[in-house]
Amino acid sequence: METVTAEETLNKKSNLPSRKELTKHFKTVRSFTEEITDPLEIEDYVIQVTESASPAKWHLAHTTWFFETFLLEKELEDYDPIHPQYSYLFNSYYLQTGVPHCRARRGNISRPTVKQVFEYRESINEHVINLIQNASEQQYEEWAPIIEIGIHHEQQHQELLMTDLKYMFAQNPLDISYKEVERPRVESVPELSWTSFEEGVYEVGHAGSDFGYDNEFPRHKTYIHDFELANRLVTNAEFIRFVESGAYGEPKWWLDEGFSTVRDDGWKAPLYWEKKDGEWYQFTLSGKQKVDPNEPVTHVSYFEADAYARWKGYRLPTEQEWEVAAEAVEISGPFADAGHLHPVALQSAKAGLKQMFGTVWQWTQSSYAPYPGYKPLPGALGEYNGKFMCNQYVLRGGSCATSKSHFRKTYRNFFHANERWQFNGIRLAK
Amino acid sequence: METVTAEETLNKKSNLPSRKELTKHFKTVRSFTEEITDPLEIEDYVIQVTESASPAKWHLAHTTWFFETFLLEKELEDYDPIHPQYSYLFNSYYLQTGVPHCRARRGNISRPTVKQVFEYRESINEHVINLIQNASEQQYEEWAPIIEIGIHHEQQHQELLMTDLKYMFAQNPLDISYKEVERPRVESVPELSWTSFEEGVYEVGHAGSDFGYDNEFPRHKTYIHDFELANRLVTNAEFIRFVESGAYGEPKWWLDEGFSTVRDDGWKAPLYWEKKDGEWYQFTLSGKQKVDPNEPVTHVSYFEADAYARWKGYRLPTEQEWEVAAEAVEISGPFADAGHLHPVALQSAKAGLKQMFGTVWQWTQSSYAPYPGYKPLPGALGEYNGKFMCNQYVLRGGSCATSKSHFRKTYRNFFHANERWQFNGIRLAK
Amino acid sequence: METVTAEETLNKKSNLPSRKELTKHFKTVRSFTEEITDPLEIEDYVIQVTESASPAKWHLAHTTWFFETFLLEKELEDYDPIHPQYSYLFNSYYLQTGVPHCRARRGNISRPTVKQVFEYRESINEHVINLIQNASEQQYEEWAPIIEIGIHHEQQHQELLMTDLKYMFAQNPLDISYKEVERPRVESVPELSWTSFEEGVYEVGHAGSDFGYDNEFPRHKTYIHDFELANRLVTNAEFIRFVESGAYGEPKWWLDEGFSTVRDDGWKAPLYWEKKDGEWYQFTLSGKQKVDPNEPVTHVSYFEADAYARWKGYRLPTEQEWEVAAEAVEISGPFADAGHLHPVALQSAKAGLKQMFGTVWQWTQSSYAPYPGYKPLPGALGEYNGKFMCNQYVLRGGSCATSKSHFRKTYRNFFHANERWQFNGIRLAK
Amino acid sequence: METVTAEETLNKKSNLPSRKELTKHFKTVRSFTEEITDPLEIEDYVIQVTESASPAKWHLAHTTWFFETFLLEKELEDYDPIHPQYSYLFNSYYLQTGVPHCRARRGNISRPTVKQVFEYRESINEHVINLIQNASEQQYEEWAPIIEIGIHHEQQHQELLMTDLKYMFAQNPLDISYKEVERPRVESVPELSWTSFEEGVYEVGHAGSDFGYDNEFPRHKTYIHDFELANRLVTNAEFIRFVESGAYGEPKWWLDEGFSTVRDDGWKAPLYWEKKDGEWYQFTLSGKQKVDPNEPVTHVSYFEADAYARWKGYRLPTEQEWEVAAEAVEISGPFADAGHLHPVALQSAKAGLKQMFGTVWQWTQSSYAPYPGYKPLPGALGEYNGKFMCNQYVLRGGSCATSKSHFRKTYRNFFHANERWQFNGIRLAK
Repeated sequence: METVTAEETLNKKSNLPSRKELTKHFKTVRSFTEEITDPLEIEDYVIQVTESASPAKWHLAHTTWFFETFLLEKELEDYDPIHPQYSYLFNSYYLQTGVPHCRARRGNISRPTVKQVFEYRESINEHVINLIQNASEQQYEEWAPIIEIGIHHEQQHQELLMTDLKYMFAQNPLDISYKEVERPRVESVPELSWTSFEEGVYEVGHAGSDFGYDNEFPRHKTYIHDFELANRLVTNAEFIRFVESGAYGEPKWWLDEGFSTVRDDGWKAPLYWEKKDGEWYQFTLSGKQKVDPNEPVTHVSYFEADAYARWKGYRLPTEQEWEVAAEAVEISGPFADAGHLHPVALQSAKAGLKQMFGTVWQWTQSSYAPYPGYKPLPGALGEYNGKFMCNQYVLRGGSCATSKSHFRKTYRNFFHANERWQFNGIRLAK
Repeated sequence: METVTAEETLNKKSNLPSRKELTKHFKTVRSFTEEITDPLEIEDYVIQVTESASPAKWHLAHTTWFFETFLLEKELEDYDPIHPQYSYLFNSYYLQTGVPHCRARRGNISRPTVKQVFEYRESINEHVINLIQNASEQQYEEWAPIIEIGIHHEQQHQELLMTDLKYMFAQNPLDISYKEVERPRVESVPELSWTSFEEGVYEVGHAGSDFGYDNEFPRHKTYIHDFELANRLVTNAEFIRFVESGAYGEPKWWLDEGFSTVRDDGWKAPLYWEKKDGEWYQFTLSGKQKVDPNEPVTHVSYFEADAYARWKGYRLPTEQEWEVAAEAVEISGPFADAGHLHPVALQSAKAGLKQMFGTVWQWTQSSYAPYPGYKPLPGALGEYNGKFMCNQYVLRGGSCATSKSHFRKTYRNFFHANERWQFNGIRLAK
Repeated sequence: METVTAEETLNKKSNLPSRKELTKHFKTVRSFTEEITDPLEIEDYVIQVTESASPAKWHLAHTTWFFETFLLEKELEDYDPIHPQYSYLFNSYYLQTGVPHCRARRGNISRPTVKQVFEYRESINEHVINLIQNASEQQYEEWAPIIEIGIHHEQQHQELLMTDLKYMFAQNPLDISYKEVERPRVESVPELSWTSFEEGVYEVGHAGSDFGYDNEFPRHKTYIHDFELANRLVTNAEFIRFVESGAYGEPKWWLDEGFSTVRDDGWKAPLYWEKKDGEWYQFTLSGKQKVDPNEPVTHVSYFEADAYARWKGYRLPTEQEWEVAAEAVEISGPFADAGHLHPVALQSAKAGLKQMFGTVWQWTQSSYAPYPGYKPLPGALGEYNGKFMCNQYVLRGGSCATSKSHFRKTYRNFFHANERWQFNGIRLAK
Repeated sequence: METVTAEETLNKKSNLPSRKELTKHFKTVRSFTEEITDPLEIEDYVIQVTESASPAKWHLAHTTWFFETFLLEKELEDYDPIHPQYSYLFNSYYLQTGVPHCRARRGNISRPTVKQVFEYRESINEHVINLIQNASEQQYEEWAPIIEIGIHHEQQHQELLMTDLKYMFAQNPLDISYKEVERPRVESVPELSWTSFEEGVYEVGHAGSDFGYDNEFPRHKTYIHDFELANRLVTNAEFIRFVESGAYGEPKWWLDEGFSTVRDDGWKAPLYWEKKDGEWYQFTLSGKQKVDPNEPVTHVSYFEADAYARWKGYRLPTEQEWEVAAEAVEISGPFADAGHLHPVALQSAKAGLKQMFGTVWQWTQSSYAPYPGYKPLPGALGEYNGKFMCNQYVLRGGSCATSKSHFRKTYRNFFHANERWQFNGIRLAK
């Protein structure tokens, strides 16, 4: 099997954007991060309410540190870091670049101030843009791929920024709205129907024509059995039936570890849900709202997705099945760019696979594992993906917090089976 | 795809052993459990030193409870349980048969006494043998499969019994030997060499001719890429080089969760290893002994197996690769029946795949997941396997604590990535 | 102030028992320990269900280790320990004699067997008796005080042995009785009445005429204000009114730390109590029984004693008040020697202070602290008491599990404010 | 014994300040809080790095809530709270006024913003001043005592504000200075010498002439034995000798619970100390500085104070001894008003008791307990002190973070034996 690795794709000259394109892309993505933090008060930037959700200030600095560490410090001989301690404070988990500050203590750090962090961003931006403009041809070929990774890295953190802010605001008993926006509502959604796929050998994985993370490589053959995929996502109305059937108290629908989690953590419904006077409410980035029956259910764990599927007599798709099914569907959907801040209901009644992209991440039953022939990027960037290939599950499709320009059909997102604070939802298979 | 399920296999008349055979099988396996506990003092039966290792007394009772619950109580109308509380005390995790006594507290229970537990075993044995003899033909067809599961269930617990006892004795600062036995030693083992397999569509899984657990079904096609499998297991001498290179302190060899575990739990070598005056020792069921360089390394976690493979520039096989490679190899090896109580060194210098069976369980890189088309057994017996298909990794091959009659090439053992107290070891792939 | 220290009292010749007396005392107390374990099965000796309750086997060995360590090993030049590891396994907390085996893991140790522990006792008994008989006069004067401490130490452990066994049996869902005994019952108990004491300077503490622990020394002056002490202990009937008033859910009756404990540990009544069909039951050493309204309440923490007193508008006595009040009362009561295995109801209707001794330990409001001029014994024996003078509360009076010959009016028992597994109860003051 | 209670003292007309005085006192103290927060950035107000240290923002709001809850809401019929949720968010531990927001989560709350909290303060200030001006004579007599408690309450929080900020800044790897100030240094301090006191009956406690907390009442007799008190505090130079003798590793100097804490928490020196290139450094509110040998040691726990005293062959004083000794000494010292932000070295070489006040809180060996005849204030204010009288130790003397106008000789401060983040130090007794 002749395969293309992530490293080769990144370094293929024909893939390189022009300097102008790259500058624009860099600026656009960096600005979008600051658009996201625009509605915040200074106080909102600082707080960490749980180990897995970082302060907004940290996201702003860490995405900047990424360019400083993997580009400026590594490639520029006379580079003088903005602050000698930033590389300790704003490293996330790259052990090959030094021991990072403890993740659980990111919220213990009041300084640098928000203003100083914005200055840090500004200063690194100038450096990077300078580099793009003034690099020699050979340098540009080397540096442009790193800048592209940095841009995509920042886009991943934009999604975390939104979900971490949501989690933080939800802890506050004062009913806070990050930003008031209206979402398009519908009267009803189409019935569940199924698209069939035939057994056989298929190819999945990134073909190498443009940017991709190392975990999407190499493209490879896989044997898929007959399967059917649901036309749309599971809705809140459907999930409420599961909740109200008493399923959270019935072990037979659950994985063993799932049922322990339900019991130990006192889960009774998806994250952010609360029943008051017979009505379900949920916390959204636009404040507390009634649960809309037609919107897709979100903020569910793998355990809940899996239990729901079992309760219905179906199952979750594998990531290979999902990717094969996605092949014929055009990428469109309410991505982050749409600005809804929440997954919206299916707006169309047409047949075929809908809501495949940009609504909620769709849990697959696939454990996050290396593709056959997988090679991590060399050096510390190899820690980006590979070392997490254990005890996590793959999600596909992007969400309402994912930038459209960040997404690919081969994109593999991954979280632990008990995690719920991302915009994750359910598509059924059988 | 037409497939055979576990339920169909269990219920196929043509598979049924004769009453005489079944009686003999039942008696042999039940006796073997008591052979294992024979060297123990009463005090050794009672203690639980960690949540995952149960007291010997509990294993004796639980395997008995299995027959009582899934056969006698369910099938005999007028059955009167030996003790009304045993079904609470000796249920392991079958939530559909009632809430079990807390696993972590199995060691808090001094009564029933060991003598009473042996009486319990005796009484249930009589009942079961009676049933085999006196069942109508139709009843026999229904009951024999359940008895077979119960027998295999007991064989699984025999392995746990040995490893749990080992773990318990190892906590005792008095240097205890469960039983003194000599193991065959060798001067050296053959060099590492590789057997190659070609890319293509293969079939794996249980074909349905004889007994199997539901997780081995159905037999199905899978696409396998070119791979090579090592001729033998990784030895202690080889693993010592890994240890002494400082690898336990070097994050780049480890999965992220693996390195956290190493650091948090203070791992410096495999479980039971200790260095004294420049020499490595290990606790065995025959007491503390020098680590033999030619014996296969054992009591390593998935994390250590994976890190070792990465350090060597190789990887672990998938369970599909392992099963395809095992197809042509005859089942033989130092299983529990050999009585070594420890994995022995490779005794042969011949070419080809060696030590595939009955030495140490071999970690694969495959997350424990349902095969395409998997159906758990109906009812509470469906909890036997299916609900554990999350965050565990598959091991293949059986160990020195596995009964040969319990083993199949399609057998899927599974443990969490951090577990080390089983006789688990490493075979490399590339 | 001229004071007598514990060391001086121990070493005063005039206090020394004769060799014959000492031998008899030693034998009697050592035998009583074995009387306590007599009803046990081997399995009952081994188990530890919580860090603070040790296995019976450990108590048997530890009390023996005490003589071996503080007498035989220290005083006999050619003494050869029974087993080199016993001093590690059976040391409790004497850091000056070496690092002890971890307290929480005493239940992980199946060997030595119970039989071996009894042989250990036997062997040390012979040594000690030998020593008493054959010591020179000077040696006897030196050794007899240590033997006396060892005897009292063993009596303390007899009480722990009973309460630890009770705690262990109570965890077992099979309803176990350590020993069936009948207790004397009464129709009613006298009304609460009060004995008054006048303000002034009093003396408390051990006067030095016979054996005492170092924490009872020196006798010293203290200023006591007017107070009244209740004639009898709080009964179950009285405490049930507290429970059923909802007091366990009402913060205003509780110390802050007490209310947190109630909430975190889910306390709803004294330890071992359970309400079934409108009736209160409690686990006793004679199995589960109805709560007798006339018996004194027991197995309550300092927090519950203090909250009850506040709820009634009273308070707990200080230890000085208790000791002053006890001065005029003759020591008698249902101590361990009475064999009731449980505190019995007040059998007399006479006026005056009743139940002062040998029923339940009575919580005082006094933090366990050194008396003015306190000097711990020299060497490792100084760790017996002094180092625990922090965050514990003093109890007075002895209980149904205390040997009468072990008790003195100046005796200071002490436990943490949240501990409930001893036979502790409540006497009110105002 | 005829005694004065806290309630009587508070309500005695003759003690009442004039309206003008009270207004001035109120304004001065409220302003001082804001002086303390003046050097902060917005980000510094929000963070909570450990359960026991609250965010600055919380202190600002909580001291305000105190006036709102105990005065405005309780006494004004038509009072409309600033925000309905503030009473939930800013209650500390008064369970009788409602369930408070979880203490450990005070740092999870980004809103209200700092600006809103200052507006809250402003608004309540106006209300309170208004009340003082416009109350009827009878109302004034009722309300003035509550306002006085509120003022003293705020002064206590000023001290916590400084120590909590210090603790928070110390977690930040960027070397932060809250405020640069110079401290007066000396060449040397006088030798340790002793002042003697004679055995006898003494009186301690608040005599009732002016403001006092309920825990200082009633004044009462106590018997004190001969004792001597050290002329000055233990210095850093002296404590370094203790540290460098290896005392943190030697169990015989420590209380049992103290030595466990040392080992479990890895203590090697006082809080904020660090050795670098053979030199001791400490974090101060003016940044990291060399440890000055002549300054008194601070940020030590009760365990360290007690162990140090034992190591020197002395002991800690009781709180009664301290109070008796303090009787003849005039209150003066470097209190918070001096603005040193750190305890300064003894500036005088004169004989007699020095540094009794306003340098560091001095650990006593007295467990925090009710005085004989103690009565908490009625209602929820009774929770101020009484419910903490368990497992804490009394400190005397005030510190460099205590306002002079807040201090009295009878003042009883109290903390748990393991707490180190206050300005606590050591004075020896024998």
